[in-house]
Amino acid sequence: MPATQTSPLAPTTKPQIAPVAGVTLAAGSAQVRYKNRTDVMLARIAPGSSMAGVFTRSSTRSAPVLWCQDALTRTGGTAPEGKPLAIVVNSGNANAFTGRAGEESVQALATAVAETLGTDERAVYQASTGVIGERLPHAKIEGVLGGLADALSPEAWHEAAAAIMTTDTFPKLASATAELGGKPVTISGFTKGSGMIAPDMATMLGFVFTDAAIAPAALQAMLRDSTDRSFNAITVDSDTSTSDTVLLAATGQAGNATVTDAGDPAATGFRVALDAVMRNLAHQIVRDGEGATKFIEIGVTGAETDAAARVIALSIANSPLVKTAFAGEDPNWGRIVMAVGKSGEAADRDRLTIRFGDILVAENGWVAETYREDDGASYMEAPELAVTVDVGVGQGRSTVWTCDLTHGYIEINADYRS
Amino acid sequence: MPATQTSPLAPTTKPQIAPVAGVTLAAGSAQVRYKNRTDVMLARIAPGSSMAGVFTRSSTRSAPVLWCQDALTRTGGTAPEGKPLAIVVNSGNANAFTGRAGEESVQALATAVAETLGTDERAVYQASTGVIGERLPHAKIEGVLGGLADALSPEAWHEAAAAIMTTDTFPKLASATAELGGKPVTISGFTKGSGMIAPDMATMLGFVFTDAAIAPAALQAMLRDSTDRSFNAITVDSDTSTSDTVLLAATGQAGNATVTDAGDPAATGFRVALDAVMRNLAHQIVRDGEGATKFIEIGVTGAETDAAARVIALSIANSPLVKTAFAGEDPNWGRIVMAVGKSGEAADRDRLTIRFGDILVAENGWVAETYREDDGASYMEAPELAVTVDVGVGQGRSTVWTCDLTHGYIEINADYRS
Repeated sequence: MPATQTSPLAPTTKPQIAPVAGVTLAAGSAQVRYKNRTDVMLARIAPGSSMAGVFTRSSTRSAPVLWCQDALTRTGGTAPEGKPLAIVVNSGNANAFTGRAGEESVQALATAVAETLGTDERAVYQASTGVIGERLPHAKIEGVLGGLADALSPEAWHEAAAAIMTTDTFPKLASATAELGGKPVTISGFTKGSGMIAPDMATMLGFVFTDAAIAPAALQAMLRDSTDRSFNAITVDSDTSTSDTVLLAATGQAGNATVTDAGDPAATGFRVALDAVMRNLAHQIVRDGEGATKFIEIGVTGAETDAAARVIALSIANSPLVKTAFAGEDPNWGRIVMAVGKSGEAADRDRLTIRFGDILVAENGWVAETYREDDGASYMEAPELAVTVDVGVGQGRSTVWTCDLTHGYIEINADYRS
Repeated sequence: MPATQTSPLAPTTKPQIAPVAGVTLAAGSAQVRYKNRTDVMLARIAPGSSMAGVFTRSSTRSAPVLWCQDALTRTGGTAPEGKPLAIVVNSGNANAFTGRAGEESVQALATAVAETLGTDERAVYQASTGVIGERLPHAKIEGVLGGLADALSPEAWHEAAAAIMTTDTFPKLASATAELGGKPVTISGFTKGSGMIAPDMATMLGFVFTDAAIAPAALQAMLRDSTDRSFNAITVDSDTSTSDTVLLAATGQAGNATVTDAGDPAATGFRVALDAVMRNLAHQIVRDGEGATKFIEIGVTGAETDAAARVIALSIANSPLVKTAFAGEDPNWGRIVMAVGKSGEAADRDRLTIRFGDILVAENGWVAETYREDDGASYMEAPELAVTVDVGVGQGRSTVWTCDLTHGYIEINADYRS
């Protein structure tokens, strides 16, 4: 691996993360692959909690992903009465494409964590990130579980976030508060992924916790919906990992009346706060995109449907030509026209409007009369850019976030063996 | 633009191109944008000929593409009795995203070429490639038409191929012969595109000619089918131009009985030769991929259908992680597993087989026992690579071709303003 410097787009201040009642965390070093750093994270989530999860749709998903999906299906996202939920995560080895051995590893780890924390093995959620195709040395992780259990603390957020990093150049955390049924509630979480959502070193994992009381089905609906506007709305290079996982746990210790319907109006403030945490974490992944020097918001309006707008926005955000133009600070709106056209979704070429920030670049199928190339070029020099495109056929809209495609990306992915 | 060197993957010998009875060509300099080089190509195709065409599916297609599609629809690919067909192509300006002005330019050029060659304006096919969003100075092209008409020659293949180049580092031509209904027939053609199939400089254009007698509907069916296995089976960076165009003209001067059904067994030899020319031209585009140092064949077998195999093959061929691994000569089969998984098509993770050339890399969901990383690394050093993947669920198969993603691509697309 190349020596890594912190991304130029990283947050400049260390985020303050509020503890979540009922959640304790610990990080340790099992030397799965990395030396001289932590590589295992254990979270204990108090009895009475709910769990929700969303996962990669890859047909080659990893053993831990299959384990989590099975556990959620079997338990409905709850632990047996009086027993905690748990999450165990390692970095360095993804336990993906490991065949039968991979299944044995997740089974062994679930059993070991369940024994250590006094719960059922189906209450143990797992994620692994790192190289693929190598057998997970799960005994090394089992060997540190006792120490981790002893060290569990309500404050160890930064330690937990650091332990799950792979090619990340900074730990990624976010926190927010809201009111729910007259009670103050907290949402805190962390994520990893240096943008490329890739299998061998840069899987996207996210873990979010709240003390709100929310029934599992409602929690699952909220997580899926929020993921759509956060982790599913970012792209660095269009690649998808075998291991992408986002878990959301709710302990209920805030004391609000349990929310049983995701559409409950009383939960609106909570959902806004959840969106804020999830979007903040997702943006941090883009900001740590491999080689990234620009953080770019792509907004599409005027599409036939919101889903069509998403397809067009991702077509722009994933286009290597568009991404290299951003890298070169080239206000190349022609490449955006190309990306709209290739998306396969309806667009009216002669009603297309393109803006760089507030600058009207093109309208009615041609460059705008007021547009000056120099203005576009000046705009492109900023590290944070916004492109909005109206495709002129309907009311559908979507926003996604991406970064530029630079020599740094090639260096990280081509010039060094993984 | 950067100073360009001929691609290291270019053919080492200049191809011999056989004349096609009934086809004459000329190239000239209209200084549309480029100085000190040719930038216009005119082809005259004798009376009695058929024309077929396939075009970009972009919703933002250019005025010349819309013109050609309309002409084919209105005329059925024929010219009025006793009148020739024509193709006029310019480089330097794509006449795309030019609104009403773009339509005026294609109309004016069609009228001018029709007058010059004594035919109907709907018998004039057009293509433009170069910058987009700038009005085509069509009067400059009109000014050289008389000279081009005087210079038409059955031999000017290399001149025609050179005139339509943009970022291409070498002209791309191919030729083949076959027997059809007892008569020898010739197929010759040329193409341009330095791989990225992009709007502003690197649109893919192809022009193929034969002296076989083939009715327009059969010719169209043959072209569409052959395109699927050639130009539609290559990718450099997944981007699609506003202007991609492939035209196939048949003069009938070989004297065979006219083929009226694309499925006619008598035409099998002809279709094999057509495939060979089209595939050769398509491969040359990949070999001129921007920054390319590796020519890579991706074969997928065992998919549910041929269409599913194509989706999986393109998922691999378009993955930035796979393409940067090739650039780094990294036998990173994990990235191939990832690309199979993200394709959305069915694959059996536990029956997946991957080969680099003849080297068995992975089988049954895990690295093969016989595989040695050193063998994979040695294999990757060659300039021409073959990856085959069996996804273990059916009989569908597909082959596509791509190149690697290198610093050269970033340099061409980010470091210099277009």
